[in-house]
Amino acid sequence: MIEDSLPPLSSEFQVPYRYTVQFTKGIFQLTNTSLQNFLISERKEGIIKKALVVLDEGLTLHYPNLIAEIKKYFQGLSSIVQLTGDIMVIPGGEECKNNPKLWESLVNAVDTYGIDRHSYIIAIGGGAILDLVGYVAAVSHRGIRLVRIPTTVLSQNDSGVGVKNSINHQGKKNFLGTFAPPVAVFNDLLFLESLDDRDWRSGMAEAIKVSLIKDRDFFLWIESNADILKSRNLEKMSYLIHRCAELHIHHIANGDPFESGSSRPLDFGHWAGHKLEYLTEFSLRHGEAVAIGMALDTVYSYQKNFLPEEDRNRILLLLKKLGFVIYHPELSANEKENLYLGLQEFREHLGGMLTIVLLAGIGKPWEVHEIDPKILAQSVDFLETYV
Amino acid sequence: MIEDSLPPLSSEFQVPYRYTVQFTKGIFQLTNTSLQNFLISERKEGIIKKALVVLDEGLTLHYPNLIAEIKKYFQGLSSIVQLTGDIMVIPGGEECKNNPKLWESLVNAVDTYGIDRHSYIIAIGGGAILDLVGYVAAVSHRGIRLVRIPTTVLSQNDSGVGVKNSINHQGKKNFLGTFAPPVAVFNDLLFLESLDDRDWRSGMAEAIKVSLIKDRDFFLWIESNADILKSRNLEKMSYLIHRCAELHIHHIANGDPFESGSSRPLDFGHWAGHKLEYLTEFSLRHGEAVAIGMALDTVYSYQKNFLPEEDRNRILLLLKKLGFVIYHPELSANEKENLYLGLQEFREHLGGMLTIVLLAGIGKPWEVHEIDPKILAQSVDFLETYV
Ligand SMILES: NC(=O)c1ccc[n+]([C@@H]2O[C@H](COP(=O)([O-])OP(=O)(O)OC[C@H]3O[C@@H](n4cnc5c(N)ncnc54)[C@H](O)[C@@H]3O)[C@@H](O)[C@H]2O)c1
Ligand SMILES: NC(=O)c1ccc[n+]([C@@H]2O[C@H](COP(=O)([O-])OP(=O)(O)OC[C@H]3O[C@@H](n4cnc5c(N)ncnc54)[C@H](O)[C@@H]3O)[C@@H](O)[C@H]2O)c1
Ligand SMILES: [Zn+2]
Ligand SMILES: [Zn+2]
Repeated sequence: MIEDSLPPLSSEFQVPYRYTVQFTKGIFQLTNTSLQNFLISERKEGIIKKALVVLDEGLTLHYPNLIAEIKKYFQGLSSIVQLTGDIMVIPGGEECKNNPKLWESLVNAVDTYGIDRHSYIIAIGGGAILDLVGYVAAVSHRGIRLVRIPTTVLSQNDSGVGVKNSINHQGKKNFLGTFAPPVAVFNDLLFLESLDDRDWRSGMAEAIKVSLIKDRDFFLWIESNADILKSRNLEKMSYLIHRCAELHIHHIANGDPFESGSSRPLDFGHWAGHKLEYLTEFSLRHGEAVAIGMALDTVYSYQKNFLPEEDRNRILLLLKKLGFVIYHPELSANEKENLYLGLQEFREHLGGMLTIVLLAGIGKPWEVHEIDPKILAQSVDFLETYV
Repeated sequence: MIEDSLPPLSSEFQVPYRYTVQFTKGIFQLTNTSLQNFLISERKEGIIKKALVVLDEGLTLHYPNLIAEIKKYFQGLSSIVQLTGDIMVIPGGEECKNNPKLWESLVNAVDTYGIDRHSYIIAIGGGAILDLVGYVAAVSHRGIRLVRIPTTVLSQNDSGVGVKNSINHQGKKNFLGTFAPPVAVFNDLLFLESLDDRDWRSGMAEAIKVSLIKDRDFFLWIESNADILKSRNLEKMSYLIHRCAELHIHHIANGDPFESGSSRPLDFGHWAGHKLEYLTEFSLRHGEAVAIGMALDTVYSYQKNFLPEEDRNRILLLLKKLGFVIYHPELSANEKENLYLGLQEFREHLGGMLTIVLLAGIGKPWEVHEIDPKILAQSVDFLETYV
């Protein structure tokens, strides 16, 4: 047999990634050197790189001068990086991930403007735009250098600092996407001033989530700053974002960055949260749905005698203090059938074996592999009447 | 300023990859345990994984029982892996990379059959099918486990053992794609028996390429086996594929696997080769075009006084002995304008700085950063009249 004489070949290697998340204010003010210094640090002798800028339309409404400012900022850098064509302004929010035409127009722009693997795509906007543009950058020419400038709380403390991108496909959320780290991230705090209250609040759900399973001190900090955070204090929010981003980055680097194994992502409160997003046809923001999901899993943890009552109360209270609603009628609809279906979907998503993160305390995650439908139903009932 | 108090966060990690390329004969014979052992080795307690098989139509023409054999093979594995739906048979060759509808139908199959990140997609066919299916697998759910069973010389010794995938977009070759290693590769020698002579030969161009820049001994081996290789000796071909695959894998693991920096891929002969593929509207096979490109760069290396005349002659002779044509009229068309344009495109592709691999000897690569158009034209003329 020929195969006996041909030993198998083993291909084994590591791919290193490194990027920095910087915190700044007014990134396109001419005196602000954050982005400029990054681009200069990547300069290559004798080569002017190209950059395609994609902007969330939601921003242009609040910052009518932004496009002019960006152009001016890059004029000063023209010996290093040149903007190609016009800045592309596209509608933000979930809808942009549902629209394959938008994806295609971006891919075609990469082609038309001759953006290659040495050029940049600079995405400025909320998590939806960053996901869409990130996916375009990841698959065009097998990967163009992506700079992210997240402009919402959620994208600054979670999605924008991580390694994933995606678009929806035929109604399936995040069906298409890749793992593709950016080359740099710039969190500009000033953009957060124009967020509406729902988006301001919604992003904080991820901070509570990560504090509950990773960092009790962080939970205590959020707790003692709840009122001032709710009243839109930018300074406090900047700390919340920084610590939350730090915990996410740490989890990625010290876990399984591209989720190839079975190591758990940071998904406390997410199984029910995801299902609620669907059941409400995405009328709930991601963070709003996750807040309800966390409330549910908190109560369930208590009902199963793992979480002390005091901790349960503190968590629910914090959510309410920040303005989150912690119950939604869809939880009870169809005799809780819908919700239980969500568990099965989550199990399938995980590949057969169910793993749900619950709490044994604040900062103390606790994994289970089954959920008791009766206690789950009791937990829903508890939330429905909780005030 | 707030930013002074918020230090940048650094995200830094490595993503490990490991896969094995196995060599076998008759992979779907019930007595053949290669694939079976791999699937068993990945088994997870209590979970039956799903597998979607995509098959190159070119194979079904030559192996009418193949589909039945595959089904039977998996029947014996049904407690570990279950085939989902029907085996998908799609037309092979470059056309399948041009057809976005084909890509979409595969993505929809992933959805319909509930193929998740723990399932497999098993692609069986030539490099074009592997590229297409690999791209589908890479972006569906951010990456489904891909098993490759390459069935052409080129895909067994080069594309199928590497880390890239792609499809064409609006006439642009490989415009969309990712770097996404497979979880396993199985080279089944017996499939090569049905290749037509052009595909049998064409794949050997990559072996000559890699021998010229990496391994003089391998060149000598090909040289002394040229006649028997040409006469379709399977045993000799199996060695050629094994060594060529080994050199490619070694290059990937010890270089820059996802080509993030400026380290050079193995692309001797490829700048002109790529251009010729376009100029001939892909009527030339990749390897046929690369053979002409290698002949051109070989002669150029000699004309520039770097490559000894004897080496030049040996290289050209080997190409001819294997049946390659080493000149194409498109090289001379438009006063060699077209060809020179290819250089500029290659420079752009590299991001401004031109780097061309030439030869200082057999097994001795030599990089240059400019090409003399006059000497290039003389090299073309030389090839035109060379017999
Ligand atoms: N890739 C990941 O790892 C990851 C993780 C979590 C969530 N996500 C995705 O992120 C998306 C949600 O992102 P999001 O919460 O940032 O919301 P979003 O991107 O949907 O934006 C919400 C709205 O705010 C507008 N907007 C953006 N910045 C603004 C600003 N500074 N001022 C005023 N308006 C502004 C947008 O135009 C949009 O209308 C979802 O699609 C979700 O799937 C991705
Ligand atoms: N991903 C990479 O790293 C990489 C590298 C080099 C080339 N490629 C790509 O590979 C493709 C070329 O692949 P290829 O040379 O294998 O040709 P191919 O896939 O185009 O196949 C050529 C023909 O052979 C048929 N075929 C396949 N297996 C057969 C068999 N065993 N017997 C008879 N017929 C068979 C196919 O149906 C097709 O008609 C190109 O699209 C090229 O871009 C990719
Ligand atoms: Zn979340
Ligand atoms: Zn090649």
